[in-house]
Amino acid sequence: MKPQFRVLGIDDGPFTFTDPTVPVIGVVYRKGYIDAVMKSQMTVDGDDSTHIITDMVRSAGPQKQLAAVMLDGITFGGFNVVDLPALHEATGIPVITVTRDEPDMERIRKALEKMGTAPTRGRRPVPDWKERYARLEKISLVEVSTGHKPVHIAYAGLPLADAKGIVRATTVRGALPEPLRLAHLIATALVTGKSHGNP
Amino acid sequence: MKPQFRVLGIDDGPFTFTDPTVPVIGVVYRKGYIDAVMKSQMTVDGDDSTHIITDMVRSAGPQKQLAAVMLDGITFGGFNVVDLPALHEATGIPVITVTRDEPDMERIRKALEKMGTAPTRGRRPVPDWKERYARLEKISLVEVSTGHKPVHIAYAGLPLADAKGIVRATTVRGALPEPLRLAHLIATALVTGKSHGNP
Repeated sequence: MKPQFRVLGIDDGPFTFTDPTVPVIGVVYRKGYIDAVMKSQMTVDGDDSTHIITDMVRSAGPQKQLAAVMLDGITFGGFNVVDLPALHEATGIPVITVTRDEPDMERIRKALEKMGTAPTRGRRPVPDWKERYARLEKISLVEVSTGHKPVHIAYAGLPLADAKGIVRATTVRGALPEPLRLAHLIATALVTGKSHGNP
Repeated sequence: MKPQFRVLGIDDGPFTFTDPTVPVIGVVYRKGYIDAVMKSQMTVDGDDSTHIITDMVRSAGPQKQLAAVMLDGITFGGFNVVDLPALHEATGIPVITVTRDEPDMERIRKALEKMGTAPTRGRRPVPDWKERYARLEKISLVEVSTGHKPVHIAYAGLPLADAKGIVRATTVRGALPEPLRLAHLIATALVTGKSHGNP
């Protein structure tokens, strides 16, 4: 891995479940430097996250030579669940998802099942909830210590040691790696007008 | 000046003269790190830039201890001309504007005069064009070498040596200091969806 490797960090902004879409920000980051910023959008509780992220990776251009795509968790805009192996296959780029807290899979299963049968106020139903849950269920999370609060990662298309190395090398302050901290700051400011400090 | 001093860089996004407003991005930057991102908007060819920037500085919070506000030029969204001394007085924070090319004042005067009398297609008139030109005219620009292409700065509320020091210390790659390069990248991505490299 080159010391100046590039990572595309992707996070969504704040939204409510009655919004049709949620803004998504991509940041091409290398040590201490932002190379590019991208904005896209995904359907809230829709199923286009894998496709949109694939487009963002492609639009980063071959010259950008990404070492990895880094996602803030595996779901965007509610239950828009990324298909990690499919994303890696479509882009040819290693994928790493990072979450601070280990997800409570039983709670997620119950919430998704409810979305499939009787969604709450104004939220759009997810008829294929079982398929989306299957995507989540097949992901194994690994705890990674970073010198800050440890994070939980999933990965596809690279060895665990490399995934850990990328997460550790890009974590500067706070628990989240810089590509995700920056994508979060920008996405939040875009929606709320202001975004400070460590998410 | 502390080595980890903070600068709020502000730039507007792309716009057309028939847009009512233009998005404006603020980035609180310290060496190699973004502390905060802010989004606001200004009226295209309006006269609210000084007021909006004052609000952005205040919303950065006293804890942020800004060494300076850095502006990409002295006009935003067309001829929304910042009143530099008034901005410094209202905020108590030093102000630095940075432009890559030395402005052609005679051309600007002609364009502003036309805006006062017979604006082009769809552009809103600027009846107080003389006052806005006066704001521009009283600014003295100083060329600053940075190890890259030199830039032209105006400043208020700090000695020239400090203004030069801040510009040089924050210029990493390309001609523009990082707080402005980043504000430009984010503002452009917000409007166009994508923004790459050195503006």
